Amino acid sequence: MSGHFKFKVEASDGAARAGTLATPHGVLETPCFMPVGTRATVKTLSPRDLEDAGAGIILANAYHLYFRPGAGVIARRGGLHRFMGWDRPILTDSGGFQVFSLGDTARITGDGVSFHSLYDGSEHFFTPESATKLQEELGADIIMCFDECVPAGAERGYLGESVRRTADWAARCRRAQTRDDQLLMGIVQGGIDLELRRESVERTLELDFGGYAIGGLSVGEERPATLETMEFTAGLLPVDRPRYFMGLGDPTGIVDAIAAGIDMFDCVLPTRTARNGRAYTSEGRLNLRNAAFAEDDGPLEPGCGCYCCRSFSRAYLRHLVTQKEILGLHLLSLHNVTFLLDLARRAREAIAAGRFGEFRASMPAG
Amino acid sequence: MSGHFKFKVEASDGAARAGTLATPHGVLETPCFMPVGTRATVKTLSPRDLEDAGAGIILANAYHLYFRPGAGVIARRGGLHRFMGWDRPILTDSGGFQVFSLGDTARITGDGVSFHSLYDGSEHFFTPESATKLQEELGADIIMCFDECVPAGAERGYLGESVRRTADWAARCRRAQTRDDQLLMGIVQGGIDLELRRESVERTLELDFGGYAIGGLSVGEERPATLETMEFTAGLLPVDRPRYFMGLGDPTGIVDAIAAGIDMFDCVLPTRTARNGRAYTSEGRLNLRNAAFAEDDGPLEPGCGCYCCRSFSRAYLRHLVTQKEILGLHLLSLHNVTFLLDLARRAREAIAAGRFGEFRASMPAG
Repeated sequence: MSGHFKFKVEASDGAARAGTLATPHGVLETPCFMPVGTRATVKTLSPRDLEDAGAGIILANAYHLYFRPGAGVIARRGGLHRFMGWDRPILTDSGGFQVFSLGDTARITGDGVSFHSLYDGSEHFFTPESATKLQEELGADIIMCFDECVPAGAERGYLGESVRRTADWAARCRRAQTRDDQLLMGIVQGGIDLELRRESVERTLELDFGGYAIGGLSVGEERPATLETMEFTAGLLPVDRPRYFMGLGDPTGIVDAIAAGIDMFDCVLPTRTARNGRAYTSEGRLNLRNAAFAEDDGPLEPGCGCYCCRSFSRAYLRHLVTQKEILGLHLLSLHNVTFLLDLARRAREAIAAGRFGEFRASMPAG
Repeated sequence: MSGHFKFKVEASDGAARAGTLATPHGVLETPCFMPVGTRATVKTLSPRDLEDAGAGIILANAYHLYFRPGAGVIARRGGLHRFMGWDRPILTDSGGFQVFSLGDTARITGDGVSFHSLYDGSEHFFTPESATKLQEELGADIIMCFDECVPAGAERGYLGESVRRTADWAARCRRAQTRDDQLLMGIVQGGIDLELRRESVERTLELDFGGYAIGGLSVGEERPATLETMEFTAGLLPVDRPRYFMGLGDPTGIVDAIAAGIDMFDCVLPTRTARNGRAYTSEGRLNLRNAAFAEDDGPLEPGCGCYCCRSFSRAYLRHLVTQKEILGLHLLSLHNVTFLLDLARRAREAIAAGRFGEFRASMPAG
């Protein structure tokens, strides 16, 4: 980890830990939820909304920004922070997940992957080197190795090959990195095969990254296998580096991940769920289209401090959602993101107070 | 005008005037632009956004709210202000314009109009009495008479009949009104026929309303005829009552209306224009889809104090608009509404300072 970064575990409770990660754009408190701003915007929310909601970091997507507006456009604007008006930390993923999951056209060939653009079908070629350069142009605080992400149910032989390729690619990303003000994270793969996960951890740790991510577990596996793999893998990672579980964003899953010692997680679910007219609450998910809310004067979630809950009734939100008014999508997105940010913050407080077990037990099943 | 309202002309400059209108929800400064919140939401903007933009009053639509969510739902929530979380004045239009313009199914029969719902095709019947009761249930500060709105180019005989019917209906609205905390405005019709406009003014003034609106001039006439009719009609209205020109929202038109002595105007244009990716600026309208903005680091409008112009570049806005990101629609809507609110505020200051002519001359053509 370069001098621009410093990770410190401030308190632990079982495997769960409360930490801080100093970055060039300020100190991030962990565990933390990272709202996803795929195209340099967290859908429907402005930077001001995200700051009000307490977001400490957001994620953006190298694949999408490579195509639109293009990394050069963003680099010439001074990088992602200035382009999108967000002064706090940003993490970009490398595009690996998108190359392999969007459009189903990826072909590993030579020293990289050829694939067709989701935007116009044109052919493109990514390598570990080009994905690293791309993320250096975008300029996030935390960047990710270019990995191969294999769908759930892949055959074991292929999975092992992929684990070794991902490790080779990680070494190439490490060598390709030229900026020391970006923390490059290695990614552990291996599906739900614990032996392959162990091999992947060993090969990735050899490269000594500033942080480690667990990838390939949000691609369709059964929940118990995901949890088991997550706990097993997190237990093999060094305690003095931040751990990031990629693609996790349901309230129960977040608390499970924190319990396993995960520090960071991201997901499009809170904003996507909102655009489907649904809200996270401590009673579970509410579908605002439900006629039961037509005359409900209460807030979405009593006690929630977000602008939506402070200002509007379920009755009004139902009206907005059923009438497809953009304000409804915005307010539900704001609430759902706030709900997950608050959940991580409350978990952090519980860890610091040594009562995380109690906190976890108080979560509704769901 | 009941004791709940007080209109005062504070300064004049030619026919243009700067005034205040005291309402149960605070004092409104005129001339003012009223953003349109058709379905109890100004599209993409929250009440907080509207307050930040300096909106003193917004408009909502009785026709749409009658169908969704229904006037009873809103009345049981304590009225529109509480339902939508807006504490400043609200004006509702009566539904007359929508009944006659949406779906083309209106049939004048008996003592009212039968028409088919835009929402589900069901048949409904509005009368001056029912439209007044509907607006009393919604609870806006300013409510409008139920009028017949005739499309441009109607035959003169029909137009005269319609002027007389609108006046009869206005008398019935006046008698039907039971709340004294709502200012009921009469509406002058007559197309671009100045004699019919004069007749309509005379018949409406006889009923002594708290304010007067000029209707039926945003339905497809040529601009010069509209301006001539507006000036002629405004000149016949009493100086001590607020004057509202219905459905006007382009920058040049607003300044022309203020010059003619109009105090209030509304239009869906600024938010609709925004949803088409276009922004009002002092250089004219910009189409943010234009490739010329791809690397433009300037704000939409230099000097504009809105959150969009303070925080984001044209390059970022172009990215959002071309990627159909909701944040782009939101930010352009916020700017366009702010632009018109600021225009009216600057006109007010110019009137107070006796330099409105200069202000008007400084407006770019177009």
